Amino acid sequence: MTHSFDAALAELRDLLADGAVLVDPDVTERYRQDWAKDPNAGTPIAVVRARTTADVQSVMKWAGTHGVSVVPRGAGSGLSGGATAVDGGIVLTTELMRDITVDPVTRIAVVQPGLLNAEVKKAAAEHGLWYPPDPSSFEMCSIGGNAATNAGGLCCVKYGVTTDYVLGLEVVLADGTAVRLGGPRLKDVAGLSLTKLFIGSEGTLGIITEITVRLIPAQPPASTVVASFSSVRDATTAILAITRSLRPAMLEFMDRASIGAVEDAMNMGLDRDAHAMLIARSDSPGADRDREIEIMASACTAAGASDVFTTDDPEEGEAFAAARRFAIPAVERLGSLLLEDVGVPLPALPDLVEGIERISEKYDVLVAVIAHAGDGNTHPLIVFDPSDADMERRANLAFGAIMDLAISLGGTITGEHGVGRLKKAWLPDQVGEDVMKLTQRIKTALDPDGILNPGAVL
Amino acid sequence: MTHSFDAALAELRDLLADGAVLVDPDVTERYRQDWAKDPNAGTPIAVVRARTTADVQSVMKWAGTHGVSVVPRGAGSGLSGGATAVDGGIVLTTELMRDITVDPVTRIAVVQPGLLNAEVKKAAAEHGLWYPPDPSSFEMCSIGGNAATNAGGLCCVKYGVTTDYVLGLEVVLADGTAVRLGGPRLKDVAGLSLTKLFIGSEGTLGIITEITVRLIPAQPPASTVVASFSSVRDATTAILAITRSLRPAMLEFMDRASIGAVEDAMNMGLDRDAHAMLIARSDSPGADRDREIEIMASACTAAGASDVFTTDDPEEGEAFAAARRFAIPAVERLGSLLLEDVGVPLPALPDLVEGIERISEKYDVLVAVIAHAGDGNTHPLIVFDPSDADMERRANLAFGAIMDLAISLGGTITGEHGVGRLKKAWLPDQVGEDVMKLTQRIKTALDPDGILNPGAVL
Ligand SMILES: Cc1cc2nc3c(=O)[nH]c(=O)nc-3n(C[C@H](O)[C@H](O)[C@H](O)COP(=O)(O)OP(=O)(O)OC[C@H]3O[C@@H](n4cnc5c(N)ncnc54)[C@H](O)[C@@H]3O)c2cc1C
Ligand SMILES: Cc1cc2nc3c(=O)[nH]c(=O)nc-3n(C[C@H](O)[C@H](O)[C@H](O)COP(=O)(O)OP(=O)(O)OC[C@H]3O[C@@H](n4cnc5c(N)ncnc54)[C@H](O)[C@@H]3O)c2cc1C
Repeated sequence: MTHSFDAALAELRDLLADGAVLVDPDVTERYRQDWAKDPNAGTPIAVVRARTTADVQSVMKWAGTHGVSVVPRGAGSGLSGGATAVDGGIVLTTELMRDITVDPVTRIAVVQPGLLNAEVKKAAAEHGLWYPPDPSSFEMCSIGGNAATNAGGLCCVKYGVTTDYVLGLEVVLADGTAVRLGGPRLKDVAGLSLTKLFIGSEGTLGIITEITVRLIPAQPPASTVVASFSSVRDATTAILAITRSLRPAMLEFMDRASIGAVEDAMNMGLDRDAHAMLIARSDSPGADRDREIEIMASACTAAGASDVFTTDDPEEGEAFAAARRFAIPAVERLGSLLLEDVGVPLPALPDLVEGIERISEKYDVLVAVIAHAGDGNTHPLIVFDPSDADMERRANLAFGAIMDLAISLGGTITGEHGVGRLKKAWLPDQVGEDVMKLTQRIKTALDPDGILNPGAVL
Repeated sequence: MTHSFDAALAELRDLLADGAVLVDPDVTERYRQDWAKDPNAGTPIAVVRARTTADVQSVMKWAGTHGVSVVPRGAGSGLSGGATAVDGGIVLTTELMRDITVDPVTRIAVVQPGLLNAEVKKAAAEHGLWYPPDPSSFEMCSIGGNAATNAGGLCCVKYGVTTDYVLGLEVVLADGTAVRLGGPRLKDVAGLSLTKLFIGSEGTLGIITEITVRLIPAQPPASTVVASFSSVRDATTAILAITRSLRPAMLEFMDRASIGAVEDAMNMGLDRDAHAMLIARSDSPGADRDREIEIMASACTAAGASDVFTTDDPEEGEAFAAARRFAIPAVERLGSLLLEDVGVPLPALPDLVEGIERISEKYDVLVAVIAHAGDGNTHPLIVFDPSDADMERRANLAFGAIMDLAISLGGTITGEHGVGRLKKAWLPDQVGEDVMKLTQRIKTALDPDGILNPGAVL
């Protein structure tokens, strides 16, 4: 660390509470990467743990004065390198900002960004209420990170994604100004939709320091259908038949490789011979639930499912959802991962999944596919051995080829994880140069010196 | 019209199809104002009817070259003067851009902006699908105007507002560039949430030339509760009790003045003595619908309703919804209107409604109140006689006082109609100077010369 950094950091320490500025390399090492383990991660000069909005304002003003870049970080569970540290910059973590207030009458919660998604759900449940968005990582991702990435999840096919639940934000801008956007009002169109602009902005436009979310009455008990297929195309036929007739409360897909990996880890009796498995849920009330389960089970059978199992025991159903949620960690045991998040319009799903199989063969790497199938949002997981340089090279080629394929099918390079640093090379291919210019104009208007999360998205 | 305008208009005529540029004062007069009848409306040099995106691009490039301002206009049903013409500018109407394609497999419609909301609903219904957002003006407002104002409506309390259904937009920017944002993908977080930024931007950031909307399966048949109350506070007690226990598919409010006005116009046997009426709906499936109707009816009775009527005949229920939708035109028969759109967090609803009564007394003007009550979004309609200058002055004072009241209750000056020109003086009071500066930065980044809808919002 250079002398000028030292002086600047001393200044920063004076602005914040004791222990807020961490420089011990053993500690900062843990904040260099998110879950995507970007190999090109830089080394931050410090990790700063904010406790209050005023802290975040102080940090941003200090950063502006010293021209230091700031990487915002929630819980670091991101899968696209959005929270990757940059050399000479700081990592600003919100992990200590953990307050929540639930108002059961207005059905609203006001949350600090560091609280985990699961903790928000729990606080809501104490009042008989429900915060729906449920990324598989819900026990280890922060609500601030969810807002910054517009996180999706399993129930989002019926209940919508993070942006659908955020009514208001407090955001600290690049220059240290704190603004309140929206608020505890169910409908509010006063001025531009700025709340929505910051949702999904991946830390490039401002730092989210408070989130006002809408809650809904607790989810009714759900029934579950689990079906195994001997071909991926049969499973995707079932998916299309289901979404054509109703709105499932969950519609998840696992391919053979992920079934095997989960079975290795959890040993719950999944059919290892199946080439695809679907987990579908209905949480409609009363007899309608049975009707929907019947429709979904029949759709699976008609599509050629080898085995169709239904249960109205919520815990039994939840075991299958948990298995699906565990797929990423389970596949991770097979090697290092490159995590995709490509999505396509639903009818193109079979072409996407089959194209991924061809890419896997061509580059000779294992690609395990899981999907929020009802949304057309897939997670091909490319497995490689990091000690095998040629395999790593092939994995990277497959990573790009899968995004190219999604774009060619009218799809997106990222349905929910965000662009971060790892997918930004493909963003112009998807959205085009004019949208990139528009994006840059907004970025420049809000962060003229480019100190907020430089290198992410743009 | 000056000579230089003539030359510029001749140039514009050459760029567009015959008949696209209208200058006959009898014709342009009809495009000077929207439904809010802004008395300060200017006189446009021309009204331009675009047929294609390329037309809109030509107009914007031409406008940039000549420094002519452009007021975008859909169907002119706006209630805040957002489409008010400005002197020396043109009005660009999308009324001839009316194509729609519905894809029942992906459950998506791609629509040009000029199609009416009701026509979008109809096209969807032909495939057994439903486009939920339902402003009361659905038979006379355009889907482009809905997107530009982020329109709400009656079923939005359960089903969400326009932004919740828009997956993608084509937008022509101030400089004439056409960009495609989002698209027919249910989940897509590639890049900033630009689609959402343009929704509700009231023509100040770009011109919407195509909209991709998500459709859902047809709404199940609904049952309806209609309840009359001898006091507004009793009705608001019932509203809070209902929203605490379930999500109604509609929860509308009318006060005594609006009941009387509707009854005068429609003669359907509403209780003129009631001080408040609620119309609530459940469209839950099967037995759950009966359960919800029972809960809502009991909540009304418990709150002291003088008369509670329920029906599971959809047509009978629809007659009450139609009565509620007719309230604005009905009250309009009593005089000129100043239309409010204030919203508050639900528990503050009784204070808002009672405060409005006091304002009505203080300024001695009739204020009829209707509300999308389940959202806390009210429409106080201030009635005045335009030939009575003092009354008009008092009406304007009441208009401001109601917005001040809403802000003081933690509410918004506009829940769904937009800021337009008529409410912009109050916007800084609600959002604060820092948010105004942020808004201006985005406006300047996207429309540096300020030719798009100048005077609206900002
Ligand atoms: C096993 C596993 C399963 C997953 N499943 C899902 C899934 O189903 N759906 C899904 O959407 N995601 C999923 N994810 C990805 C990840 O959990 C989400 O992207 C989550 O929203 C990230 O939250 P975080 O707190 O960990 O954010 P981080 O990883 O710390 O940061 C994510 C991004 O947000 C920015 N950021 C964080 N906090 C703030 C803030 N307060 N203000 C401004 N910017 C900020 C960062 O700079 C970064 O760009 C999964 C991850 C794992 C490891
Ligand atoms: C009786 C009555 C009842 C109503 N009830 C409701 C209700 O329940 N809920 C509700 O939300 N509103 C309601 N409204 C208000 C109005 O209908 C809505 O605001 C509607 O969305 C406006 O659509 P429009 O096509 O008429 O737009 P216009 O009035 O023509 O324009 C509205 C705004 O959008 C801009 N605009 C229009 N088209 C475009 C475009 N293609 N690109 C960019 N900007 C554009 C205009 O510049 C203007 O700022 C009601 C109005 C009436 C008269």
